[in-house]
Parts: sequence; C-alpha cells; structure tokens
Amino acid sequence: MLDLWYTENWTENTRFSIKVKNHLHSEMSEFQKIDFFESEEYGKFFTLDGLMMVTEKDEFIYHDMITHVAMATNPKVKKVLVIGAGDGGTVRELTRYKNIEKIDMVEIDERVVRLSQQFLPVTADKLTDPRVTMYFEDGLKFVEEAESGEYDLILVDSTDPISVGEGLFTTEFYNNCFRVLGEEGILINQHESPYFEKFSKEMQKAHRKILDTFPIAKVYQFHQPTYPSGHWLFGFASKKFDPIKDHKPEEWEKLNIKTRYYNSELHRGCFALPNYVKEMLEGEK
Amino acid sequence: MLDLWYTENWTENTRFSIKVKNHLHSEMSEFQKIDFFESEEYGKFFTLDGLMMVTEKDEFIYHDMITHVAMATNPKVKKVLVIGAGDGGTVRELTRYKNIEKIDMVEIDERVVRLSQQFLPVTADKLTDPRVTMYFEDGLKFVEEAESGEYDLILVDSTDPISVGEGLFTTEFYNNCFRVLGEEGILINQHESPYFEKFSKEMQKAHRKILDTFPIAKVYQFHQPTYPSGHWLFGFASKKFDPIKDHKPEEWEKLNIKTRYYNSELHRGCFALPNYVKEMLEGEK
Repeated sequence: MLDLWYTENWTENTRFSIKVKNHLHSEMSEFQKIDFFESEEYGKFFTLDGLMMVTEKDEFIYHDMITHVAMATNPKVKKVLVIGAGDGGTVRELTRYKNIEKIDMVEIDERVVRLSQQFLPVTADKLTDPRVTMYFEDGLKFVEEAESGEYDLILVDSTDPISVGEGLFTTEFYNNCFRVLGEEGILINQHESPYFEKFSKEMQKAHRKILDTFPIAKVYQFHQPTYPSGHWLFGFASKKFDPIKDHKPEEWEKLNIKTRYYNSELHRGCFALPNYVKEMLEGEK
Repeated sequence: MLDLWYTENWTENTRFSIKVKNHLHSEMSEFQKIDFFESEEYGKFFTLDGLMMVTEKDEFIYHDMITHVAMATNPKVKKVLVIGAGDGGTVRELTRYKNIEKIDMVEIDERVVRLSQQFLPVTADKLTDPRVTMYFEDGLKFVEEAESGEYDLILVDSTDPISVGEGLFTTEFYNNCFRVLGEEGILINQHESPYFEKFSKEMQKAHRKILDTFPIAKVYQFHQPTYPSGHWLFGFASKKFDPIKDHKPEEWEKLNIKTRYYNSELHRGCFALPNYVKEMLEGEK
C-alpha cells in the first residue's frame, strides 16, 4: 500500500504530517507552487509553496471566523472587498447574507481559483453568485486605485507575510484599506499566531501597524488544527464599531444563518485572550 | 549533526513531530514506558507510552486551566484531591493559594514523580510543600476508600482513557468523586478533545457519565498546541457552583496570582464553545 505523507515544517524543529491517498494536482503558477491532495482524515486539501491553506475537514472554522464576527457587529454591511481567498470559502459565507449587494474579490493568482473550482467545490461553489466580481490582480495595487469610502467591510484572507502575501502586511496597505472603507467600515485581517516566535513576530508587527491606522483595533482567537500550533488569530479593526459593545446578537440570529463553529456566545468569548497573548499585543501599544 | 525526531501519531493518518536534542532517560516502570527528552523548541518534555504529557514550553497553559477556573469559582477551597498529575504542575499551581490547607495527590506511578523531580523541577518543585501528601496508588481505589465529604475540590489530571487512566473515566469513579466532595464540591476532569473522532468519543462518554452524576456539568476549552489538534477541554462539575454565575473575579484578582494564560475575561470566554462541540455535548443530554 502507498505510504505517502504530506509534511509541513511548522518551525525548524516541529513537523505536522498528513497521510495522503492521492496527490491530485501539482503545478507551478506564475506566482507559486500549488498542490491539491486527497486524504482520509482531512478530505481534500491544498497547499501553496508547501504551506497548508484549506482542508475540507476544518475550513468551516476559518471561514466562519473571518466573516461572521464582522457581520454580527454590523449586519447592515452591503459592499465587501475580499483580498486573497482564492479557495472561495470566505465569499461562500458572505453570499449567505441577503442584504450584501456587492462582493469584490481580489486574488492575485487565478490558478488558485480555477483549481479550487475543480477540486474544492465545497468552498468554491458560490464564486458564480451574481453579486461576486473577481479581479485577478495584486491586492495592494487594487486598494491603491479603489475609490475612497467604497466599501463597508474588507476581509484580508491572505497567506503568511512572505512572498505573495507580503504587500498585504504593510502600513501602505492598511492606510489604503482605511481610505476605501466608509465611516462605518470594518477590516478583518489574517493575523497569524501567538505560539511560535516566527508567527508571533508577524502578529505583533501587523497589530502595531493597524493600531497606528484605525481608532479601534482588537484581536480574536480560534482553534484551527491544521495551521501551525492550532492557535490562530484575526485582527478586527474599525472606524466606529467595537466588536463587543456594538455586537448585535439578536439581529444576527434573526438572519438564521446556520454555522458549525461561530455563535453569539463565542463571538464574545473569542476576544478573551490568554495573558501571554495580551502582553505581546500590549507591547505594541 | 544528530537528526533525531520524536513523533506522535495523533491519529492513524496524522503525525506531530518534535526535533530532539537529547533523549535524557527511558525506562519501563511497573505501569508504563516513560521517556524524557530535551528539545530546542519545547525545552524538556516527557511521554508515557509514547504519548506527550508535558513540555516546558506550554505546560503553563494546561496547569493554569485545570486549577484557576475552579479556584476563581470558589476561592474558599481548603482541601484538594489531585488524581494523576505526577509531573507536579497542578500541585504547583495549587500551592500558590495560601488558604489551601491540604493537597492529597494520588499518582499510580511513583517513577513519574521521581523522574519529574529529577528532570522537570519547573513543574515538580512544589511537591515538597508541607501541605502536600503523595499517595502512590490507584486513583479509583483511593476515592472508593476516602471518607465522604472530605474534599472541596478534585482535579483529575489523567492520561487518556486507555491503559493506566482507564478507571478514571468510569461512572463508578465519578460517583465516588461526588461522594467524597463536600456540599460545595467541584470536580475538574481532563476531558479530551472534540476534533479527532477517537478523542471526541471519549469526551462524549465522559460528559454523559458526569451529567448523570452532578447537577452542574459544563465544559471549557483551551489551546494546548502539543496535544492532538491543539484543541483541548476540561469538564467542570459541581454540586452547587456554576462557573459563570458564581465566578468571583474580584476575590480572585485580590489574591494577586500572576498567570501567563488564565485571566478573568478568559474564565468566561473559555466556556463559549463552538457549535459543533456544543452539538456533540448536547447529544449526550
């Protein structure tokens, strides 16, 4: 029997491995190495430059947490900009809100989208929603050129701040996000992890830059077992809304959106961070 | 250069590996295989029958969460029974409470304690506190023979419900815990994990049994990156106290116990569970 394992070096001294049934596809796109796999434990999954992006087993956690925390803080959101997110899972969650009128998705690598549509319909199958427009270009350049006040919500669903994702962790990018958001605008940022130093350093840098840009900047956590350490964070930044004080659980629950991870209690709970994480973030104040 | 890796099969199809600098000690005790290692990323760590127990890097998370949630619900606890916990970390946290008068620790395998004292003083160095009495015997038998109403708090710091730890996941054990607890008694139980099926089944069985025994039975979560999936749970059971309604943050904060993971906000936050976990637990109601 084939004994094939996908292994990711979470750090120089830590490895995470998944037994693979089939290596479904492998290619070098203009931007990165893309691989799709099939496994017993996690279903299908794909990697970019050898780093885990999405598995069928736990993508619901990430996509719940990047979307619903913002939407339950301002359920009136109508215009959304999504940066990255080529697998389509973030857009899928957004399309569940009837009052959202426009979803612009900016993904630098069209091949990630096309391959996700082929191999991961579970995440990609709402990319054909009529409200969605896909732009295959650089996210940093897109926000530079976008009109001021155009969006109510920006979701930054990026890779790590190396190679392709690097420009999305800059002050220039966050300043442009601020500018293209309306007065009630919210930014959700992929915020890395506090546990291993190489990630926590990036988390601290991103938090520093967002604190310098937005009047409200909080961080929330969730369990994502296929990402390094399983302890992952998003940043919540806003011009007006506090995710706890302005949380609208009754309004959100009326929408009757069924979720497997997110709920209103967890909305409040996920902002309660461990002391060592708070100290890392406060070090940036 | 030596290329030595400790690998744990989290499931049949998932592996977690740590690069090892030194294999410090290995022995077969009367009960189990005990191994101590030294690593760059996690400091020293030890395994029982090849399963990760404690690392210097993240033991503070587990030991904060097994101890302080109960103590901030009833800061008047005076008599504590600890089952398992041979590394000493749980006892170390308990000794920080001045009003605790008696800590009985029941660990079946004396070798785990002696080796932890030798290799892991960071967890074991409070086992010599005068309030601590160590009993090297079976936890199930100990609670059968203990007097009714003897303890205010029981912390079950067990291995998985296989081999040595198995008797600690039985109705008989929980019934005896109920009996030896006073009217204000609290039981904290190592509750496994919701993410991989082999652990979530045990979590559901344990929860079912505790629900049948105690009038109040809740579950709380934390991030423990060196345990399978990094998503781990404790059960909180009690005759009288609800961990949220009876939470006493002001009293606890007055004690001025410095913690690296636990805090009063997180106390409330950690009981907010994801929907898929709630559904698993509700299935047992």
